[in-house]
Amino acid sequence: MTNIIQPVILCGGAGTRLWPESRGQLAKQFLPLTGAQSLFQQTVQRTPAGAAFLPPVILCGDAHVTAVRDQLGAHQASLIVEPMPRNTAAAIALAVARADADTLLLVMPSDHVIADVAAFHAAIAKGARLAQQDWIVTFGINPDAPETGFGYIASGAALGDDGFAVDRFIEKPQLADAQKMLAAGGYSWNAGIFLFRAGRMRDAMLTHCRAIFEAADRAVAAGMIDGDALYADAVHFSQAPSDSIDYAVMEKDDRVAVVPASMGWSDLGSWQAVHTLAPKDAAGNAVTGDAFLHDSHGNLVRTGGKRVSLVGMDHVAVIIDGDDILVMPLDRSQDVRAAAKARE
Amino acid sequence: MTNIIQPVILCGGAGTRLWPESRGQLAKQFLPLTGAQSLFQQTVQRTPAGAAFLPPVILCGDAHVTAVRDQLGAHQASLIVEPMPRNTAAAIALAVARADADTLLLVMPSDHVIADVAAFHAAIAKGARLAQQDWIVTFGINPDAPETGFGYIASGAALGDDGFAVDRFIEKPQLADAQKMLAAGGYSWNAGIFLFRAGRMRDAMLTHCRAIFEAADRAVAAGMIDGDALYADAVHFSQAPSDSIDYAVMEKDDRVAVVPASMGWSDLGSWQAVHTLAPKDAAGNAVTGDAFLHDSHGNLVRTGGKRVSLVGMDHVAVIIDGDDILVMPLDRSQDVRAAAKARE
Repeated sequence: MTNIIQPVILCGGAGTRLWPESRGQLAKQFLPLTGAQSLFQQTVQRTPAGAAFLPPVILCGDAHVTAVRDQLGAHQASLIVEPMPRNTAAAIALAVARADADTLLLVMPSDHVIADVAAFHAAIAKGARLAQQDWIVTFGINPDAPETGFGYIASGAALGDDGFAVDRFIEKPQLADAQKMLAAGGYSWNAGIFLFRAGRMRDAMLTHCRAIFEAADRAVAAGMIDGDALYADAVHFSQAPSDSIDYAVMEKDDRVAVVPASMGWSDLGSWQAVHTLAPKDAAGNAVTGDAFLHDSHGNLVRTGGKRVSLVGMDHVAVIIDGDDILVMPLDRSQDVRAAAKARE
Repeated sequence: MTNIIQPVILCGGAGTRLWPESRGQLAKQFLPLTGAQSLFQQTVQRTPAGAAFLPPVILCGDAHVTAVRDQLGAHQASLIVEPMPRNTAAAIALAVARADADTLLLVMPSDHVIADVAAFHAAIAKGARLAQQDWIVTFGINPDAPETGFGYIASGAALGDDGFAVDRFIEKPQLADAQKMLAAGGYSWNAGIFLFRAGRMRDAMLTHCRAIFEAADRAVAAGMIDGDALYADAVHFSQAPSDSIDYAVMEKDDRVAVVPASMGWSDLGSWQAVHTLAPKDAAGNAVTGDAFLHDSHGNLVRTGGKRVSLVGMDHVAVIIDGDDILVMPLDRSQDVRAAAKARE
């Protein structure tokens, strides 16, 4: 038997890995990177309100409230507004503090892609059974390459057919270690998606990171309610130490489970990842907008309303946003921060 | 003894080799490609009116009259306006038809660079002595590389210290032939700069390309004079066969001389040539405008008022003009026509 699940969508990020499109008020999660819908909209629609899911709780900063409301459209949701960024542990603590102890919270980033929603839902069903046995559940992605950009989770003892006790969390590895884990099996990527009973997480936070939970709890109690939004109190929330939920809770708790899944997941963490997922023509070019490509292969072109012409170019990204034009090899995508830092 | 020389500047071109900056009304010759002054302005200033040179005659199309006048500024000049393009033979015929027979005409393209003006003037002095002996003079560029993009001139018998009788003209060669000519010596590049007595060219045209000269002559006679400009008559001029002065006269006449010179000449015939001549930073990047370059080398960036960021790019051109953005490897510069054709 599965309780109805409360989706909690973390919408506070403002990453620069997809600069120049992702910046300031138009963060990555609000961009239509893989189709007409933004990643945030896809995330909302992935757990539709109904028999299985409650309307989502959206955690976001003040600067993103307008974008959230615009993109929600007619979707029902409630908002918790963070007065300042305090990383994921404090954000999740706000949602936990507001929830009934027996509610199952499904915490999800707002800027990932999950192509196989049925597989995702099947994994959630497994995770829900474990969460009701007071496991804190994290979803692992079955790896198909020795990625060095993700943390890994080592599976321990099997928990029936639903998942595994987590043996340990592994920081972003060197390539050789990633290759070893891929070959050995029993490891998955940490996708930052969590499922737990609210009361169980409250207890874990009081044990492992009491200062974070108490600051969040007070920020909720002293918060201002405006319609469907709770604006957390700034004075109290500012007291919360800034830490990730992984460091603050997951790596410290001794009853954490992993549900491995293959669900077409990508964090779209670089323009190269966007190119990988985007529809491409016969020459491997992924184009958005008015682009003329001559003898050019494997490129990602996003014209931002301008007219782009490529002649004899292979495997580069040309990204235009407003007056900013970024040109780089796709395999240098991780270095975009240098430009973002110089420009923003 | 040298007569005063009448400069004739051919300004009719509208090449696409430097697209997207060069197009339509803003042709290559009017662009500030190598500094604050356009190539046309540099051409005008290269033969300043005074003891040696008369004010220039500018040959241009109707679409370029405004640009010519704007860029001439206070420089004195007269204009001959071609009602439609008919290639260089007919354009030169217009200037010849208007000139006194004993005037020395120095015909020059408006879109080349000559870095060493003193060497150019020294070559003109030699050429003028030959022109007064009724040689049709062409200026050859001493080659420093086996270029396949230029025609070559083979020198024949020496004409004192001033130059050589032309043995023959050679079409744009294959690389192996260009290498042989470079090794052998006695060959120069055809730069399209000519010096001759007007009456001598009139006679040559009446012999070699009578239809061209007669059409131009009638177009001048029936032309409309408006201040310092002669608008050639369209009906008559349209009768002129379209041919280059090289084919129509130079290759057919038996009294053509070449004056080889080393004068820092470039036809700036590609973005690669622009990069070669442009001032560069320590990493070999030539930048005009607001560009941020990270780990990028040997690039040509012209921002057109936008903000360009390059990350990990080497040896490419990024050229922005209005809403057009061109990206290509510099060594593919000759293929820019594909984009220009698709876009214009």
